[in-house]
Amino acid sequence: GHPGMCLGAADPLFVLWSRLLRFDPARPDWADRDRFVLSAGHGSMLLYSMLHLAGYDLPMDDVKRFRQRGSRAAGHPERGLAPGVEVTTGPLGQGFAHGVGLALARRMLAARFNRPGHEVVSWRVFALCGDGDMMEGVTCEAASLAGHLGLGEITYLYDSNRVTIEGSTDVAFGEDVARRFEAMGWHVAAVDGYDHEAVAAALAAGVAEVSRPSLVVAGTEIGHGAPTLHGSARTHGSPLGAEEIRRTKEAAGWAADQSFVVPEDVGAAFAGVASGGAARRADWEKRFAAWREAHPDLAAAWDAQHGDAVPGDLDERLVAAAREAAGKATRVVSNRVLQAAFKAVPGVVGGSADLGPSNETVISGGGDVARGAFGGANLHFGVREHAMGSIANGIALSGAFRPYAATFLVFSDYMKPALRLAALMKAATTFVYTHDSYAVGEDGPTHQPIEHLWMLRSIPGMKVFRPADAVETAAAWSWALRRSGGPCCIALTRQAVPAFARPDGCGVAEVLRGGYVVAPEPGDGAPDAVIVATGSEVAIAIGARDLLAAKGVRVRVVSMPCLELFREQPATWRDEVVPPDARVATLEAGATVGWGAIASRDGLCIGLDRFGESAPAEVLAREFGFTADAVAERILTWIRDWPPPRRGARASP
Amino acid sequence: GHPGMCLGAADPLFVLWSRLLRFDPARPDWADRDRFVLSAGHGSMLLYSMLHLAGYDLPMDDVKRFRQRGSRAAGHPERGLAPGVEVTTGPLGQGFAHGVGLALARRMLAARFNRPGHEVVSWRVFALCGDGDMMEGVTCEAASLAGHLGLGEITYLYDSNRVTIEGSTDVAFGEDVARRFEAMGWHVAAVDGYDHEAVAAALAAGVAEVSRPSLVVAGTEIGHGAPTLHGSARTHGSPLGAEEIRRTKEAAGWAADQSFVVPEDVGAAFAGVASGGAARRADWEKRFAAWREAHPDLAAAWDAQHGDAVPGDLDERLVAAAREAAGKATRVVSNRVLQAAFKAVPGVVGGSADLGPSNETVISGGGDVARGAFGGANLHFGVREHAMGSIANGIALSGAFRPYAATFLVFSDYMKPALRLAALMKAATTFVYTHDSYAVGEDGPTHQPIEHLWMLRSIPGMKVFRPADAVETAAAWSWALRRSGGPCCIALTRQAVPAFARPDGCGVAEVLRGGYVVAPEPGDGAPDAVIVATGSEVAIAIGARDLLAAKGVRVRVVSMPCLELFREQPATWRDEVVPPDARVATLEAGATVGWGAIASRDGLCIGLDRFGESAPAEVLAREFGFTADAVAERILTWIRDWPPPRRGARASP
Repeated sequence: GHPGMCLGAADPLFVLWSRLLRFDPARPDWADRDRFVLSAGHGSMLLYSMLHLAGYDLPMDDVKRFRQRGSRAAGHPERGLAPGVEVTTGPLGQGFAHGVGLALARRMLAARFNRPGHEVVSWRVFALCGDGDMMEGVTCEAASLAGHLGLGEITYLYDSNRVTIEGSTDVAFGEDVARRFEAMGWHVAAVDGYDHEAVAAALAAGVAEVSRPSLVVAGTEIGHGAPTLHGSARTHGSPLGAEEIRRTKEAAGWAADQSFVVPEDVGAAFAGVASGGAARRADWEKRFAAWREAHPDLAAAWDAQHGDAVPGDLDERLVAAAREAAGKATRVVSNRVLQAAFKAVPGVVGGSADLGPSNETVISGGGDVARGAFGGANLHFGVREHAMGSIANGIALSGAFRPYAATFLVFSDYMKPALRLAALMKAATTFVYTHDSYAVGEDGPTHQPIEHLWMLRSIPGMKVFRPADAVETAAAWSWALRRSGGPCCIALTRQAVPAFARPDGCGVAEVLRGGYVVAPEPGDGAPDAVIVATGSEVAIAIGARDLLAAKGVRVRVVSMPCLELFREQPATWRDEVVPPDARVATLEAGATVGWGAIASRDGLCIGLDRFGESAPAEVLAREFGFTADAVAERILTWIRDWPPPRRGARASP
Repeated sequence: GHPGMCLGAADPLFVLWSRLLRFDPARPDWADRDRFVLSAGHGSMLLYSMLHLAGYDLPMDDVKRFRQRGSRAAGHPERGLAPGVEVTTGPLGQGFAHGVGLALARRMLAARFNRPGHEVVSWRVFALCGDGDMMEGVTCEAASLAGHLGLGEITYLYDSNRVTIEGSTDVAFGEDVARRFEAMGWHVAAVDGYDHEAVAAALAAGVAEVSRPSLVVAGTEIGHGAPTLHGSARTHGSPLGAEEIRRTKEAAGWAADQSFVVPEDVGAAFAGVASGGAARRADWEKRFAAWREAHPDLAAAWDAQHGDAVPGDLDERLVAAAREAAGKATRVVSNRVLQAAFKAVPGVVGGSADLGPSNETVISGGGDVARGAFGGANLHFGVREHAMGSIANGIALSGAFRPYAATFLVFSDYMKPALRLAALMKAATTFVYTHDSYAVGEDGPTHQPIEHLWMLRSIPGMKVFRPADAVETAAAWSWALRRSGGPCCIALTRQAVPAFARPDGCGVAEVLRGGYVVAPEPGDGAPDAVIVATGSEVAIAIGARDLLAAKGVRVRVVSMPCLELFREQPATWRDEVVPPDARVATLEAGATVGWGAIASRDGLCIGLDRFGESAPAEVLAREFGFTADAVAERILTWIRDWPPPRRGARASP
């Protein structure tokens, strides 16, 4: 693993875990536990040591099998694997920013549920960060917002050892971190990381400072305690070697020939931690029960907000709201659905990276979240897409909210690391991405997404919806609100998309099969071709189908709002929708990179494998061929040039 | 467009352009011109106004056709479209960070070529940034590095109007920006943006401060001069409306009924700018000629560094270097190639986001770039992947260097916006991404790339190399060093990959066709199947081929180190390598998302469409099926279950 930080930061983390952190190792899901995030995730063994010593269910056998298949002590901490791991970390800066999301959730929970004499939400957020965390841009974004909002629940330890992989931080990192954080509204204290009393006092002062987030800069030394290698970048990610380990143990007064031993004094230091935590939790349970009795309405709201249940008529309500805006841009349709969702389902909160009015993601009457006012539903992330993603994930991880985060689709680029972590943690975050094609128009290629849908679809476990109309937009939100299994993206148009007639009985359930026949081929017999389209191109495909029908060419149109859900369907459904021996064309206003799997090598992928241009959307639609006429023409040519139909192609695996 | 900023920042930008900026509008390619970057790219019309008024070849007709197809006055400034646009901007923070790259290139050029009495490199870097730029994490990363390195050539104007799309910056941005920048080593001055003398003095002080970058915080008002809407977020990106425009002109004392008119006093203010710039350039040309005469060796080096020529035996040298490490990890092979490249081609500089030793990207004897020492070739970006990408692009845009930027493949996520801009600008930046699969091993899923190769391949114009052996690694670098057409990524293994026998005469040229037969099917006749593989999986595919040959199954192995180059080949080559009627399997240790286009719907894509695990690489290779045995077994099953061979499939389009 990474011995350098585990040795160097052991002292300050020991102080935090043994003296300040509130938890009950027997109940890692206790709602009012403090959250600890190891932002410097490569120091995983240090966290596992704390978890083991504190009495969590992480036996020595897991610790011994560190970084081996099946061990809960994975190379980097993974949420869901070892108990007590709140956030999956490793990519630097993410723990820092996700922790800000946890703290924001905690403030929003407190505003909703705490009442005079009943402080049932009292947890704090701690993290351990390293020099690398401090250099990452996402940290700066999250810190700025945390300072702006005055998230005093945050007390972060900064393991300032001034050594990174390439050597001293002097090679690349000379700034005054404390002053930078003060400029962003943080309370900052600097201490000797090996002076336990000073660390404890600084952490306590950080906890006591409730109007500002706190950063405790702990001066440390990488590889502390290793007689030869201490202070060297060589300890960062390489084993110390048997001899150095032996001498390190000797220097600590431990038996040099023993491994995986908890020295008596260490065990003693943690002796009361578990029982103290259990007593604290039991006390909270009593106070929580008293609060429930005193405020049954709040208790019901609490349960609803922490549960996954949705109203039985949710889909009907969402579809009805969506239909109010049928024929408008799907971002406008989404806005109507969002208003209905806010009324129907508890815990819907979210916002945009300064594009709320454009993204159509403002909840009317939802109230704004601001410094000192956390009862609202509308968040303002500022122009900080990356931190927005991580913070939204952190809010989702609280289990108490259904957060969404919005920006233009092209700027999903800025958030990719947060998107990946959402998928890895199965966090139920909803990413709303509007302005989803070249049809952004005049703002030009920097603002016109091309490759982004496939960037998102390629993330394992991410569901990407690109709805074509009101019903599909409602269905996408329905999937998201049910917290059906991890994160999703909803790609929405800037421009109006014409409403089209849906087949009878083709509602939310069909949409959530991911792909379905939205306009069957006219007449009987196998279709001459199948067009698989998404989003704003479905109406164009239907237009092309109608033009071709007039020429005697029988085309079926399949809408595929969520390829990932389609792939999860049984082969019978998939083969029914896209017959294995059919000529398949795909149509989407973006890169065709992944459509070849649907169209097959001899199919036709109509898309845009180049950057866009600055011009009105309708000019570009003609230039790029996204009109019914142009699509019909291409289909005709393709069919004409096509060799004798393929026979015997096998069904989908 | 975006009238709010164009009105609000016109005054300070006018001061900069009319009084300080050094340029010759007749020669936008003059080597010693100052570089101006409009980081707040949505204010494009303000830049076009300056370019037009200053005499650049941007006639009123282009201005009138703002944001229309074919106009050089695109929605956001695009490098290569309007003269005088140094960097394509729009995505916030990018202009700021790319400008840091330009300034770094300028320092490195000065260190190489300036001599006492001959300061031939004297240009400065200016930018106009807005509140949005200041919130973006990439700005913080770039600013921190610029402060650390003391890049005094930088003088940035910050248009601090304190209004963003969602309203006042009070909703999300309350920090003390000046203090934050001071903490990062910047010289900061705050002025009234409408006090021309104060702005000029502050800019001059910024220019005079050569040991620190400078930020001039210009207090402004969005929509300044619009009688009703000034100060309102409504002016950000929406038209003012005819009536407000009329009243704005009236308030300025202009004819309300006239449009596209340059008032006399405005024209007068710019009258001497073009001629002054031409005289300054002529003077520089003389000094440059004198320097060339005094230092012919340096002049030759200058020409070489600014040209695209490479030694005639470059490929031989790179291959010879690569072969020294044949059979080792391709990152190690790449290291050897890089050493040879540094010796063979001028202007090779680069570094890593604190992973140099792991990425194997340190140039031996190249010297380190550090504050006060810019003659070296090794850059230290710190843990700042995003700014690294943008800065490397800025260095590439200088035209004087061949920069590379390195990190783990999984962290390409952090740099996506910079990768996209590199492709959009056709910047010849080389992105080196090591640890390119699950074979990262113990560090687990946060560090194991899955979807990343397709994220990169889906960017229009990006070339993605995943070399399989020494020759392919040398070929990838050969392509990069020739600045053959935009950026490229080189994905490299952490782990050793066995060397394999290459067919006779199969060298760099064949590799640069993107895909080629690396192991033909044994015997005569059409192959039973073709395996298309990349990188570390090519050797596995060859192993499977040999196992299958022993069972009488005749398999061809195609190596496809660069799918984009393969797709550029004539159909004859592509059909020769992958016969249209062949059974095709693909093999790559990552997401299969785009391979369906090669394998076809009834093909077999062997990959990894799930997150990885924390375990030793060889354990994971067995679990995930990346062994010759497992691949042979899957091919056998697939062939057995396959229906009668497809007939009549058409050739590649």
